[in-house]
Amino acid sequence: MASSTTTSGQMHRVTDGSVHTPLGFKATGLHAKVKRKRKDLGVIVCDVPASAAAVYTLNQIQAAPLDVTRESIAEGGTLRAVIVNSGQANAVMGKVGVADAYEMRDKTAKTFGLDPRDVAVSSTGTIGERVQMEKILPGIEALQPEATAASSNAFAESILTTDTCTKETCYATEIDGKTIHIGGVAKGSGMIHPNMATMLSFVTTDAAIAPEHLQQALSEITDRTYNRITIDGDTSTNDMVLTLASGKAENKPLHPGHPDWAHFIQTLECVCEAQSKQIARDGEGATKLVEVNVKGAPTAEDAGKISKQIVGSDLLKTAVFGTDGNWGRIICAIGYSGVTIDPETIDIAIGPHLTLSQSEPVDFSEEAVTAHLEQDEVFIEVDLHIGDSSGKAWGCDLTYDYVRINAGYRT
Amino acid sequence: MASSTTTSGQMHRVTDGSVHTPLGFKATGLHAKVKRKRKDLGVIVCDVPASAAAVYTLNQIQAAPLDVTRESIAEGGTLRAVIVNSGQANAVMGKVGVADAYEMRDKTAKTFGLDPRDVAVSSTGTIGERVQMEKILPGIEALQPEATAASSNAFAESILTTDTCTKETCYATEIDGKTIHIGGVAKGSGMIHPNMATMLSFVTTDAAIAPEHLQQALSEITDRTYNRITIDGDTSTNDMVLTLASGKAENKPLHPGHPDWAHFIQTLECVCEAQSKQIARDGEGATKLVEVNVKGAPTAEDAGKISKQIVGSDLLKTAVFGTDGNWGRIICAIGYSGVTIDPETIDIAIGPHLTLSQSEPVDFSEEAVTAHLEQDEVFIEVDLHIGDSSGKAWGCDLTYDYVRINAGYRT
Repeated sequence: MASSTTTSGQMHRVTDGSVHTPLGFKATGLHAKVKRKRKDLGVIVCDVPASAAAVYTLNQIQAAPLDVTRESIAEGGTLRAVIVNSGQANAVMGKVGVADAYEMRDKTAKTFGLDPRDVAVSSTGTIGERVQMEKILPGIEALQPEATAASSNAFAESILTTDTCTKETCYATEIDGKTIHIGGVAKGSGMIHPNMATMLSFVTTDAAIAPEHLQQALSEITDRTYNRITIDGDTSTNDMVLTLASGKAENKPLHPGHPDWAHFIQTLECVCEAQSKQIARDGEGATKLVEVNVKGAPTAEDAGKISKQIVGSDLLKTAVFGTDGNWGRIICAIGYSGVTIDPETIDIAIGPHLTLSQSEPVDFSEEAVTAHLEQDEVFIEVDLHIGDSSGKAWGCDLTYDYVRINAGYRT
Repeated sequence: MASSTTTSGQMHRVTDGSVHTPLGFKATGLHAKVKRKRKDLGVIVCDVPASAAAVYTLNQIQAAPLDVTRESIAEGGTLRAVIVNSGQANAVMGKVGVADAYEMRDKTAKTFGLDPRDVAVSSTGTIGERVQMEKILPGIEALQPEATAASSNAFAESILTTDTCTKETCYATEIDGKTIHIGGVAKGSGMIHPNMATMLSFVTTDAAIAPEHLQQALSEITDRTYNRITIDGDTSTNDMVLTLASGKAENKPLHPGHPDWAHFIQTLECVCEAQSKQIARDGEGATKLVEVNVKGAPTAEDAGKISKQIVGSDLLKTAVFGTDGNWGRIICAIGYSGVTIDPETIDIAIGPHLTLSQSEPVDFSEEAVTAHLEQDEVFIEVDLHIGDSSGKAWGCDLTYDYVRINAGYRT
C-alpha cells in the first residue's frame, strides 16, 4: 500500500495511491497484442464480494459490455472483478458483440475462480470493430493482479485509447475512527461529453457501504463531476463509472443517516472531481485545462448547465488555444445555454481579470489576460447576479492536434 | 435585371440573379475603411414600402441592431431599406451600442429620404467592440445603390466576415400568370448553429404579399433551412433573416388560401435552402459541404433533429476531413440526439455505399467510401425504419483551418 499520513477525520491525498490502495483490491494490465505496442487488457479483482454501483452513458446506442455489466450487478449488487479491453469498443456489433462480451466475462470468471455474475465487462476503442477474441482470451488467462502501485499503473495504462497519460487518484479519510481509502483510475480523451459518462472510470474503496447507498452517492456525485466535463460534445456509446466497495475498513456501514455520510460524499467527490479534471486536461489534442465557475445562478443545476455550455464552445476553446481574451464568445455561450438569464447583469473574469461588469465592457489589460491564458490551467468566472447558486465545469482547448488525431484515428 | 428564361408556372434559377433582380430593389456596398481592405458597409433599398418579415437569433444575448430592426418592422410591417456593417457586431456594448444602432438608422433614413422607421439595421463581426461610427456615418452618405448584378455583389461582399466567398441566389416562377423573383444574399462562416439564425440572410421578392403572410412563410421555411445548418454549434448574438416583398410583380396578394401559395413556399424555400447550403459549404476552414438526410423517422422534426446532431458532431466532421468512413461516429450521434430510436433497425449509407444495415455492420469497400468522402459534397443517408418522415441538415468538415482562424480571429 502507498504511504499515507492520516490526520484524524481529515481527508488527504495518498501519494502514489490508486485502485489497489483500498484494502481488498488488486489490479493489473498487459499487452495482449491487439494494439501495436501499448497495453490493451486489464483487470481489477477484489478478495471479497464488493458492493457495486455504476452509472452508464445515456446514449441510446449502448455497447454490449454495458448490458452484461448491468446484468452482473443486478445479481445481488456485488462484484468481484471487472475486465477491460481497449482498442475495440464492442459497440454496434450485433449478436456477435453480445456473445463476445459474455465470453470475456466467462473467461475472467473461470480464470479467477469466480461466478460469471461476479464479473463486470468494459470495452473502449473503435465502434463497429469486433473484439479480437483470439488475443483477448489468452490475455485474460495471463493476467496476474497485485496490490502494488506498479500493477495499478499497468491497469491504468491498459484502458487508454488516444489518452496521453494515465489518470490515477487516491484519497484517504477517517470514518468511525477507521481509515478508509478511495482510489480511482480513469480514461478519457475523445467522444467525451458525459451525460452521463463518455469515459471509463473505476473507483475502489474499502469503506463498508451497501450497494444501494453506494449507488446513491455515486449518482449524486456524477452530476457534479463526470457529467461536468466535455471534450468535444460527443456522448460515447461505451462509457461507465464503476465503483466497488470491499468493506475491509470495517467502519459501521455508511448510509445517509450515518454521522460521517457527508464526509464520505465529500471524499468520494474529491476522487471523482480529480478524475474528471485529469480527463479534461488530457482531452484529445489539449494543451490546457479550462475550469469555468458560474456563480449567482438561480439553481446549482442552472449554474452547471451554463458552465458546461461555455467550456464546450468550440469558439471559446479555440480562443483559449490562441490565448485570445475574447469574452464575447463567453457571453454568447451564456446566451444560448437555455437557462433564463438577465442580459444586463453579467460579470465575466478571465483568471483574476474582470473583462465585463454588469454586461458592460471593462477596460482591461489584454497582455495580462493573455498571460493568464498562456498558463496550463485557465480559470473563467461568471457572475450572473440573479441568484445564490454556483457550479463548475471542466474542459480543454481545441487545437490542431484534435483535428489531426480525429481525422486519422481509424484509418 | 439578369437574364431569365421563364417556363410558365415552372420555378427556375436566374443566372446572375441576386437581391436586385426582384422589381423595386437596389443594393450596393463599399469600403468604409473599418476593415483593412474588404468592403464593410452595405445597403438594400426598395422604391416602395416593402412588406417585411424577419426571424432573429434565439440567443438571449442579442445585439442592439436586432432591437432597432424589430422596432422598425413593428411600425406598419414595412421597410424601405436595410443598412449592414461588418467588422463589429455591436453586441454587448451597453447603452452606447443602442445609441450607435439608432444613429446608423437615422443616418440611413436621412441619406435616402426615408423615415427612420423604414430602416432596418444589421451588424456582424466581433462582439464587444464599438462600431467605428466616424467611418460608418460618412460611409452611409457615400452609398449609391443600383439594380445591377455588380452592385448586389458589392453588397454581398460588404457583409462578409471570415467568409471566403459571396453567397447569392435568385429563383423566378409564375404566380397568377405574373413572373415573380426571389433573390437572396447571405453571410455565414463562424458562430453558426442557427436556432434560429446565426448568420445574416437578406431575401427580396417582387411578389405581392402582406407582412403577416410573408412572416408565416419565412418562419415555416426557416425551420427546414437556416435552422438546419451548423458550423460549430455556437448560436450567435446577431443573426437574422430579413425578407422584403415589393409587390411590383402585381400578382394577386399571396396568402395561405391562394392557389399558388404552396408554389410560392416552394420557391422561397428553394432560395433559403440554396443560401443555407452556401453558408454551410463556406464554414470557417471548411473544405466540404456535408448533407445528412434522415429517413424513416416518426416526425419531420425528429428527422431534422437527428440530421443536425450528426452533421454537428466534431468527430464526424473530422472524419469527413480525414476521408475516414467511420460510421460508428454517425450511429453514436444518432444515439445521443434526444430522439427515441430503435437501436436495432438503423441503416447508414455514406454516399451510395451502405455501411450499416439493420444496425449490423455491412462488409463495404473502404476505398469506395473514401473516394466519396474525397468529393467536395458528401452525402450521408440514415434510415431509422421507425416511421415515414424525413429531414435534412447541412454542415461542413472540421479542419486545421477552423482552429487557425478562430485561434487568431480577434488578436
